[in-house]
Amino acid sequence: MPNTYCVIMAGGLGTRFWPLSKSLAPKQFIDIVGSGRTLIQQTYERFAKICPKENIFVVTSVDYKELVMQQLVGIDESRVLTEPLRRNTAPCIAYASYKIKNIDPEANIIVAPSDHFIQNEDVFLSEISKGLEFVAENDALLTLGITPNRPETGFGYIQVDRPHFTPSAQNLYEVKTFTEKPGIDLARIFVESGEFFWNSGIFIWSLKSILSAFESHLSDVAELFGKGQKLYGTSNEVAFLNKTYSECQNISIDYGIMEKASNVFVLCCDFGWSDLGTWGSLYESSEKDVDGNAVKGENIMLYGTTNCIVNMPKDKLVVIQGLDDYIVVESEGTLLICRKEDEQQIRQFVNDVRMNKGEYFI
Amino acid sequence: MPNTYCVIMAGGLGTRFWPLSKSLAPKQFIDIVGSGRTLIQQTYERFAKICPKENIFVVTSVDYKELVMQQLVGIDESRVLTEPLRRNTAPCIAYASYKIKNIDPEANIIVAPSDHFIQNEDVFLSEISKGLEFVAENDALLTLGITPNRPETGFGYIQVDRPHFTPSAQNLYEVKTFTEKPGIDLARIFVESGEFFWNSGIFIWSLKSILSAFESHLSDVAELFGKGQKLYGTSNEVAFLNKTYSECQNISIDYGIMEKASNVFVLCCDFGWSDLGTWGSLYESSEKDVDGNAVKGENIMLYGTTNCIVNMPKDKLVVIQGLDDYIVVESEGTLLICRKEDEQQIRQFVNDVRMNKGEYFI
Repeated sequence: MPNTYCVIMAGGLGTRFWPLSKSLAPKQFIDIVGSGRTLIQQTYERFAKICPKENIFVVTSVDYKELVMQQLVGIDESRVLTEPLRRNTAPCIAYASYKIKNIDPEANIIVAPSDHFIQNEDVFLSEISKGLEFVAENDALLTLGITPNRPETGFGYIQVDRPHFTPSAQNLYEVKTFTEKPGIDLARIFVESGEFFWNSGIFIWSLKSILSAFESHLSDVAELFGKGQKLYGTSNEVAFLNKTYSECQNISIDYGIMEKASNVFVLCCDFGWSDLGTWGSLYESSEKDVDGNAVKGENIMLYGTTNCIVNMPKDKLVVIQGLDDYIVVESEGTLLICRKEDEQQIRQFVNDVRMNKGEYFI
Repeated sequence: MPNTYCVIMAGGLGTRFWPLSKSLAPKQFIDIVGSGRTLIQQTYERFAKICPKENIFVVTSVDYKELVMQQLVGIDESRVLTEPLRRNTAPCIAYASYKIKNIDPEANIIVAPSDHFIQNEDVFLSEISKGLEFVAENDALLTLGITPNRPETGFGYIQVDRPHFTPSAQNLYEVKTFTEKPGIDLARIFVESGEFFWNSGIFIWSLKSILSAFESHLSDVAELFGKGQKLYGTSNEVAFLNKTYSECQNISIDYGIMEKASNVFVLCCDFGWSDLGTWGSLYESSEKDVDGNAVKGENIMLYGTTNCIVNMPKDKLVVIQGLDDYIVVESEGTLLICRKEDEQQIRQFVNDVRMNKGEYFI
């Protein structure tokens, strides 16, 4: 479709995959599923199939600009937008939107995280096309909902309301509620009801609709970024951003707009998705050997070892005997061995490491 | 005592502590108990307290000569005897003995492995002194027996016969039998009987007694090494050894002499000894934290982890959660995780690594 743009959000930090993802190279810059390409590379190439590369923008932290340029070979520097401070998704999307306004006021935009896993790319792209068609013709804020296959407590859920089918999309609904990560009992009820879908954090809208939504629901953010309209692309852009980000509130697009707007729709999809937010979800999305081990590394020898995640540097020889249901991961001189079911403790380990050993290891 | 000499045997290979001990640096050259000094350094310094350094000989493989020179700083090169081939302990001891004959025919000699652990050095040295006194006055082959504190199946046992007490030693006995590693049931009977002692592999004898024993029980070995009497210390020594070792049988001093000679005695001691032949025995001899973990490494953080052996390079950060009774060891880019009770499988792992990954990792 003409006027198709894409905004890839790649500013995330995150220590849940520590020590694999350290602050110097967060998850999106790592080949976490062992495909040979990092998550941001996969994301970029996926969208390049539906949208000209010059229409793909990557928003990231100034700290990661070089990593982005290195990993997305050939990307034009003008397409890498750098944020001076982390202010969550709403300012990130506002910045990209006002910037695109200078280029193409008729743009239709896909906004997506850089670090998600998509199993079935063909289905994904076909759903994206449906969504683009819909938002081109309707003043709608569209989010992709994922048919849940388990009562996952790590994701947000979207409850659908009335269907809003179109000739090309029979899986489009109005939204009743957004729900943050539920407890396990609630998650079970959600999944059984059939009314709830995982919130993928992937959005589609026209530039006009999202700018109008900012003006209605986050008018301060709209005003701040709108003031720069003549500065984007000039030598004053950096100074403008420094000032704007320091004055801007920290708020997510879900909380700031999606949960408040009345023109929110959900396209319910099933293309094998994971936000790869936990080792458990990475394990679910990984290929496993006959003993249920998800192994990455070229010199790994397992004996009596089952249901483990083993993620090791290429050159490392590793012999593991007698482990069941563990995470064994090494990166840059740091080794972690942890029960899979206790992975929520990793955050604590990282804090302890920071306190006792310093930032170097984080 | 005058005429005291020491022969430290340091030619051993061994993969039981793999990957900590690889063929490039076997156990004796490693600081395996985390004391800051390698086992051979500890052994050398221990004997230097009872015997002039110029009287201490180290017998090793030609491959390890440089390692010995590096680790035993200041040792005279003439005191490092190198074997061109591995032929077990009898040829090793014969070589050193005939060599010492050129220097001091009245020598009394302690023969000891380079890779054992001695906890109470004062008691050890005092027992050695008693033994030296005894062999100086008697044509005796003396071996040190260790009071067993558990039914260890990894050691050989010596059964004592009649006491042969002297004014200075009330723990000296004639030997009834040598027994190789027993099964657990037999080991229990041995320990309960009070008649059995662990065979430490540490010997004391006069040069005259051991040469006479070689002539009686291993006359071919005696003849081979005796032929070199005028060559030791000359430029022809290496060529002579190459020939001699290639012709010499492979046989242990226990099997070749100790089990056959009638003038064998045992000095029964208790100084906290281990041959460090298994991870289990290393664990027994190691200091442990409150959770029973024997930890070596400077950046190890344990959570809910008990009774483990953790042995990591200094600079490595390691976080371990939820392991009980495991060995976790890394050396030179190779990591092993293995249940402590399954350590006998390590030999198999090493074979598999050799087959699948090559000698580089061994």
